[in-house]
Amino acid sequence: MPDVVGAHNAGERGNPPHRVVIVGGGFGGLNAAQSLKDAPVEVTLIDRRNFHLFQPLLYQVATGSLSPANIAAPLRGILKGQKNTRVILAEATDIDARKRRVILSDGEAPYDTLIVATGSSHHYFGHEEWRPAAPGLKTIEDATAMRRRIFLAFEAAERETDGERLREWLTFVIVGAGPTGVELAGALSEIARDTLRHEFRRINPAAARIVLVEGADRVLPAYPPCLSAKARAKLEGLGVTVKTGTVMTDIRADSVRVRSGDQAEAIAARTVLWAAGVEGSPLGRALARATGAELDRSARIRVEPNLSVRGFPEILVIGDLANCSPPASQPLPGVAQVAIQQGRYAARLVRARLQGQGLEPFRYRNRGNLAVIGRAAAVADLPGLRFNGYLAWLAWLFIHLINIVEYHNRLLVLVQWAWNYFSFNRAARLITGDNPLPFGG
Amino acid sequence: MPDVVGAHNAGERGNPPHRVVIVGGGFGGLNAAQSLKDAPVEVTLIDRRNFHLFQPLLYQVATGSLSPANIAAPLRGILKGQKNTRVILAEATDIDARKRRVILSDGEAPYDTLIVATGSSHHYFGHEEWRPAAPGLKTIEDATAMRRRIFLAFEAAERETDGERLREWLTFVIVGAGPTGVELAGALSEIARDTLRHEFRRINPAAARIVLVEGADRVLPAYPPCLSAKARAKLEGLGVTVKTGTVMTDIRADSVRVRSGDQAEAIAARTVLWAAGVEGSPLGRALARATGAELDRSARIRVEPNLSVRGFPEILVIGDLANCSPPASQPLPGVAQVAIQQGRYAARLVRARLQGQGLEPFRYRNRGNLAVIGRAAAVADLPGLRFNGYLAWLAWLFIHLINIVEYHNRLLVLVQWAWNYFSFNRAARLITGDNPLPFGG
Repeated sequence: MPDVVGAHNAGERGNPPHRVVIVGGGFGGLNAAQSLKDAPVEVTLIDRRNFHLFQPLLYQVATGSLSPANIAAPLRGILKGQKNTRVILAEATDIDARKRRVILSDGEAPYDTLIVATGSSHHYFGHEEWRPAAPGLKTIEDATAMRRRIFLAFEAAERETDGERLREWLTFVIVGAGPTGVELAGALSEIARDTLRHEFRRINPAAARIVLVEGADRVLPAYPPCLSAKARAKLEGLGVTVKTGTVMTDIRADSVRVRSGDQAEAIAARTVLWAAGVEGSPLGRALARATGAELDRSARIRVEPNLSVRGFPEILVIGDLANCSPPASQPLPGVAQVAIQQGRYAARLVRARLQGQGLEPFRYRNRGNLAVIGRAAAVADLPGLRFNGYLAWLAWLFIHLINIVEYHNRLLVLVQWAWNYFSFNRAARLITGDNPLPFGG
Repeated sequence: MPDVVGAHNAGERGNPPHRVVIVGGGFGGLNAAQSLKDAPVEVTLIDRRNFHLFQPLLYQVATGSLSPANIAAPLRGILKGQKNTRVILAEATDIDARKRRVILSDGEAPYDTLIVATGSSHHYFGHEEWRPAAPGLKTIEDATAMRRRIFLAFEAAERETDGERLREWLTFVIVGAGPTGVELAGALSEIARDTLRHEFRRINPAAARIVLVEGADRVLPAYPPCLSAKARAKLEGLGVTVKTGTVMTDIRADSVRVRSGDQAEAIAARTVLWAAGVEGSPLGRALARATGAELDRSARIRVEPNLSVRGFPEILVIGDLANCSPPASQPLPGVAQVAIQQGRYAARLVRARLQGQGLEPFRYRNRGNLAVIGRAAAVADLPGLRFNGYLAWLAWLFIHLINIVEYHNRLLVLVQWAWNYFSFNRAARLITGDNPLPFGG
């Protein structure tokens, strides 16, 4: 197997530098790499993709507000000035913890320190058969596929002459009322009521039914109850049917079944969007096999307080894949803030160890949570401050804008948000993909 | 088969309005529809896609400068204020010229006047087997696939340890030196020399070899020879190897074979981009079968001087699919200007006929041609005026900007062009698609 790391500094081999391999270029991995700038180490960042993705705005791609490139930044571009860092486009398939190397589909990467930051993927509560009917939202491809489904549903409805099927095409079910589910529901309502207004001749897009299904007893379960209530009221004001305390029991191409307590209900719908369960990415399972690390219920790696794997202090796990909380307590939420802080912590730990020192355990500083519900509506749960409405929405806009990597993307996003806001339009609502049209034929 | 047109004005059936069906929402079809605004007709615009595509900038998507949505505008959005017009997302598969209806994959559209504007697709001079190895550039999917190939080639090179394969990955062959081929060659040179500078650790992207192959004896064969010479000199200055009077004899995954006179040559290359032959779209063949219309060598329909099909005055063919020149003479070029003028002419003809009048034959008013070669370099062939260099480039920028449909896209494109120009970057260079990586594994 070719060694993809070895040639970093071929030539000056007197005192081989400490090799840090980071797998995953999301918020955690990228921040770890950036925080190792100018450190006396050789950093290799491995990702399957050539870009960092700003996932909190992925739902805006799925709903036609932004283009994929607006929320993505090429990893090589971000890191090109960082001389101790190399980027490798490759798929990591396994970890050989004894020999200290990452196994790639076409090579291997030996490490002295390994930082695993491969995040999470969807899971369907044991119902893998739901996946084709209810796509999730983790990648650019997920987002353009979801966009395709949403806008094709209205096109199919315009072509439909059968009343029952017409209703199926105009019913959208969103599973999970966390921030993504709430954001999708609000955006769908705007698409139906504003964006597509006057664009169809047979159907009235505003007649679309949007159903948000959540197993917990309120929307945004991770937020304070008072904000959940505000969010629910706002969603209902937007015409969204909110079903809390309700679980999915079946998902098919033209209908879903839900249960609320003893009551079962079938909803005829051809578009189901999955914003519910996530679990640790497959590399996490490989790491658990290789190290004996424990996985939690969501396939996250249970790590030590300093984010390392028990018995393998040179392996750190950060971001959505890591569970650093004591077994009985609630794990940290799978949000960008946690991953960013853990990435920076991991880099600090590497630097400290090189100087023979340790580091206090990782501690998450919660800077607050924001979820947008729709046009000029959001909820904010900041330390010591809870508010909602227009001001929360402005805070959301501002915080997301300044956190987007690369200046020009900030400008592009700002231009499009302003235009979308004032025109009620969504310019990026392209139906792409080579698949045939799903109706007729 | 459901009739997709009939219900337009269900209710007021006293004097059924004249039904105009337009197939294709490119420059020709869209301009025909827009020019029928407020005419006493019912317009149905049928397209497989829900957007109009500004094809002249497609190469900028393929080379990572712009996002797909920047050069696409939803057809429904453009036409929503036009009350006599309906948009149908459907695939037209055939034409029943006797019964005057378009056959869709899931219905049919009866017409009184039919405007066929389905454009052209690639052809490979009888070598269909070249298609997988040498993708063309007609659709958004073509552009993102080409973008994937271009940027993956550099990634694969960075991973390659074998010297010969490394050279294959860093060799790019462009087939056809019309405007698209020249634009691609210039953009590739900039990617290799500027965009990717400092981003790789093992390879030097600037060592990439870019070969532009053209069967005619000069680049931009449709331009005056003096501008062809300027363009060639500029391309060679950018490091592009220009091979004119050279034809492809074979294309494989890792090499191409070309012949120039008696001399045959093999070029080891893993990325081949097709910017050569086009032919009329498949619906043209169906139309020829249905009407007995003659096809020219490039499968374009030979139409009457008023763009109608001989014997079927109610069927008009416009844009890339039409050849309205006398058999011995050169057909009009397949450019946006021709399609736009023909679309407007078709609408004027419909209006004139409704008043019992005819119209003078279509006459093309050539407003000039511009081709961009690279950063601040272009050639301009305007009526009575030929120039090149910075001024031609500015003219190109200006003319393309003002012709992009929808204001906000103009602004987005302007922002990105400015940013790309000053930063030498290309932000939209995402490698997307679910296919596995092409190397290793």
